[in-house]
Amino acid sequence: MLAVIFLATILGIQAHPFDELHQHVDDHVEDYVEALRQWVAVESDSSDVTKRADLHRMMDMTAEKLKGLGGEVEMVDIGFQELPDGTTIPLPKVVTAQIGKDSTKHTICVYGHVDVQPAKKEDGWATDPYNLTDINGNLYGRGASDNKAPVLAWIHAVEAYQALNLDLPVNVKFVIEGMEETGSNGLDTMIVAKRDTFFSNVDYIIISDCGWLSRRPALTYGTRGNCYFFAEVEGPKQDLHSGVYGGTVIEPMTDLIGILDSLISPSGNILVPGIREAVAPFSDEEWRMYQDIEFDMEAFKSKIGIDQLMYNNKVDLLAHRWRHPTVSIHGIEGAFSASGSKTVIPAKVTGKFSIRQVPDMDPAMVKKQVTEYLHSVFAKRKSPNKLKVTMIIGAKPWLADTKHALYEAGKAAVKRVFQMEPDLIREGGTIPIARTFQDVTGKSIIMLPIGGFDDGLHSQNEKMSRYNYIEGTKLFISYLHEVAEIKK
Amino acid sequence: MLAVIFLATILGIQAHPFDELHQHVDDHVEDYVEALRQWVAVESDSSDVTKRADLHRMMDMTAEKLKGLGGEVEMVDIGFQELPDGTTIPLPKVVTAQIGKDSTKHTICVYGHVDVQPAKKEDGWATDPYNLTDINGNLYGRGASDNKAPVLAWIHAVEAYQALNLDLPVNVKFVIEGMEETGSNGLDTMIVAKRDTFFSNVDYIIISDCGWLSRRPALTYGTRGNCYFFAEVEGPKQDLHSGVYGGTVIEPMTDLIGILDSLISPSGNILVPGIREAVAPFSDEEWRMYQDIEFDMEAFKSKIGIDQLMYNNKVDLLAHRWRHPTVSIHGIEGAFSASGSKTVIPAKVTGKFSIRQVPDMDPAMVKKQVTEYLHSVFAKRKSPNKLKVTMIIGAKPWLADTKHALYEAGKAAVKRVFQMEPDLIREGGTIPIARTFQDVTGKSIIMLPIGGFDDGLHSQNEKMSRYNYIEGTKLFISYLHEVAEIKK
Repeated sequence: MLAVIFLATILGIQAHPFDELHQHVDDHVEDYVEALRQWVAVESDSSDVTKRADLHRMMDMTAEKLKGLGGEVEMVDIGFQELPDGTTIPLPKVVTAQIGKDSTKHTICVYGHVDVQPAKKEDGWATDPYNLTDINGNLYGRGASDNKAPVLAWIHAVEAYQALNLDLPVNVKFVIEGMEETGSNGLDTMIVAKRDTFFSNVDYIIISDCGWLSRRPALTYGTRGNCYFFAEVEGPKQDLHSGVYGGTVIEPMTDLIGILDSLISPSGNILVPGIREAVAPFSDEEWRMYQDIEFDMEAFKSKIGIDQLMYNNKVDLLAHRWRHPTVSIHGIEGAFSASGSKTVIPAKVTGKFSIRQVPDMDPAMVKKQVTEYLHSVFAKRKSPNKLKVTMIIGAKPWLADTKHALYEAGKAAVKRVFQMEPDLIREGGTIPIARTFQDVTGKSIIMLPIGGFDDGLHSQNEKMSRYNYIEGTKLFISYLHEVAEIKK
Repeated sequence: MLAVIFLATILGIQAHPFDELHQHVDDHVEDYVEALRQWVAVESDSSDVTKRADLHRMMDMTAEKLKGLGGEVEMVDIGFQELPDGTTIPLPKVVTAQIGKDSTKHTICVYGHVDVQPAKKEDGWATDPYNLTDINGNLYGRGASDNKAPVLAWIHAVEAYQALNLDLPVNVKFVIEGMEETGSNGLDTMIVAKRDTFFSNVDYIIISDCGWLSRRPALTYGTRGNCYFFAEVEGPKQDLHSGVYGGTVIEPMTDLIGILDSLISPSGNILVPGIREAVAPFSDEEWRMYQDIEFDMEAFKSKIGIDQLMYNNKVDLLAHRWRHPTVSIHGIEGAFSASGSKTVIPAKVTGKFSIRQVPDMDPAMVKKQVTEYLHSVFAKRKSPNKLKVTMIIGAKPWLADTKHALYEAGKAAVKRVFQMEPDLIREGGTIPIARTFQDVTGKSIIMLPIGGFDDGLHSQNEKMSRYNYIEGTKLFISYLHEVAEIKK
């Protein structure tokens, strides 16, 4: 069979070795599951510094795996992490790899991460989160879908070409980090530092750190950004007993609740002037696109356990999930938050809320709008307390052109593997690294997810289905081919 | 000298052995400080079950001390405490004592407690909280003022009469508990059970578990009650990622913030209909009383570290501290409350707030008013989330008649020891046991504080001044005499 492929190639016949590649994948399913089992077994929780040794080990294992592809692998030192107590510990190294240096080919760069969210059995997991467990074809384990299986699927896709002695259609680079779940500490700096070296010959960046919207495969072309605010109201110099002092002071909590209540209407409208006006208009074409997307409102409701969504039709709901800003009030620091009762007047309270960013909002403008608005609302209260508003995160949204050849390649790859058109979707959440890659390298980016819509990322009982893992590997194999077809 | 007293007594001459009694106190100052040192050294923190052995030891030491007075001392078993995990541990026994059984005399019952609030050096104490430290005549230590020194002062007052072989003017009973700081678990039941035995011949109950308002001694004639509410708003079945789901659901936090904001105006007015209307009118006489009270607004402001109080004049401020209801919002359970940022939509959030009760409010009515009001405000939001309002504490206010002989006796005692009139004050906080004593036993109650206005109860660097401790002991000695003068 290989001889046939070789012959077809030298004869200039359009060769399609996909059947062989897919067969190779199908023949190695248990190897792939075993590889995922080994990776999931490492508790590479980047938020827990006591697990840092595990995280370093995870980066070493990733580097080893990439070395198996025969390329140049580097473990890039990105410095230290400062802990709240002022001490520092080393950040996990970023693993970069380069397979192939043929300047006549495109070069893609696959971004992924191998750190995970925290997980404990007692959080409500049905299985040990670090012991990959197969139940009815679903592989349960922390990090299975986010993002270990997708990273492995990319490695296996390259491996498959190599195993069959097929020429890789494109040069493949990898950037695999270990701090994604806690904000990609150190990665931005590394990307800037390597802009003119590692990234200089990269044509396209591919991120598979998201999921489908339904059982239909999807290509993701946008994410929302996020402006995260702290609104601190400070009154007395220390907490007071509400019996002894209640009625003598204007309480910071009363002020904070008052200004937080001014952010959003009961039906979910943002009340900060200027925010909604900045949002890019919803075009007829977009409306039609949304109309065609496969999305089961009932399944969505049942998944999150509510009877009534904010919007009753699919288009409005998806639009407000993906391409409209939203305000979420996350909580209050400094107030009483335990179970039981405490009769305290908290002296200093900090409300935490965020506004998801969409085109054409500008975080700097949002910061100004929110700060001025809250101060004006606060001023009307004539409170003796002090208000301080700070924006601690200002992550921009990311939006790709779905007409770009990268997306055409994605559609072709999906069609080949799944015999259907992908949905073109956005993410409501923020993947800041996409925007950083775009801003720093100027390269085009595609998000090509293989995770299922119900994988439970960041939640209990995270899983990756065998179907998505294995067919996802085939999708990446096809995608490598389709990207090679893009005209230089 | 004793012979003189004896002679004067049998001759029917008005004998005043106060000089001798006071001299005895002055001669034993270091003994009293040492006794307090030994009690403060016991970490009898009733909120921390790991300190339960210390708490039991504290009750034993209290019983020993009371046995030294030669009376009948009992350690009353009040059962078990159920812990959150369902297990039970024994409650500290309540120590009762009876000194004297002369039916021709009045019988008073002194209530106090020897458990303490938590304290750790690292909370910001300048000294070890369990090593009584004398700095410029202030005795720093956890529980020094609340309530160990006052309990000891009562014991020393009785001891002084005995040491001088003076007949005790009244029979004295003690009820000393070890769970006051966590809600007097088990005490109510004990009081009810002993209503017709231990309490049947008690004429007056005296509580010294509070403090003065200024450097002027005070008699306390009222406390506010407290209705503590949980307002729970429940939406999705689990916390959601605010990026992924923001814009698709009406968030429980938005609803909760909205209804909490409806409780109170920016200037501190309670907005729940019916609450303010129920408050007993402020009489001209009361106004005059308040006008005469010694209270330094500037010192109060500087103590709590604010520039502007809710009211600018003494009468309004004290009235709103003591005899008007107030709403305090303590915090929210279930939302994000840690430092840093988290992009969560909390699924179920419980707002905690309390309304201080004053005459003529009725907790059952307040419960109805608050519940109906919040549900009506919530209904207007047309939210799909569920609201549940519960009142978990409904403690009534307590108010004594300042014209009662107990208060006249208090004024006379203060005048003898301090050569000045006491202020007649209230407490903004709640001392539920006062109301329980009143309701169950039907006896008259006085609160006779000896703590300083700046003792820092429940706070860092709690202290009792030598002055208040020693002169307070003399006050109790005088008070025993004055109560004996009350006509049967």
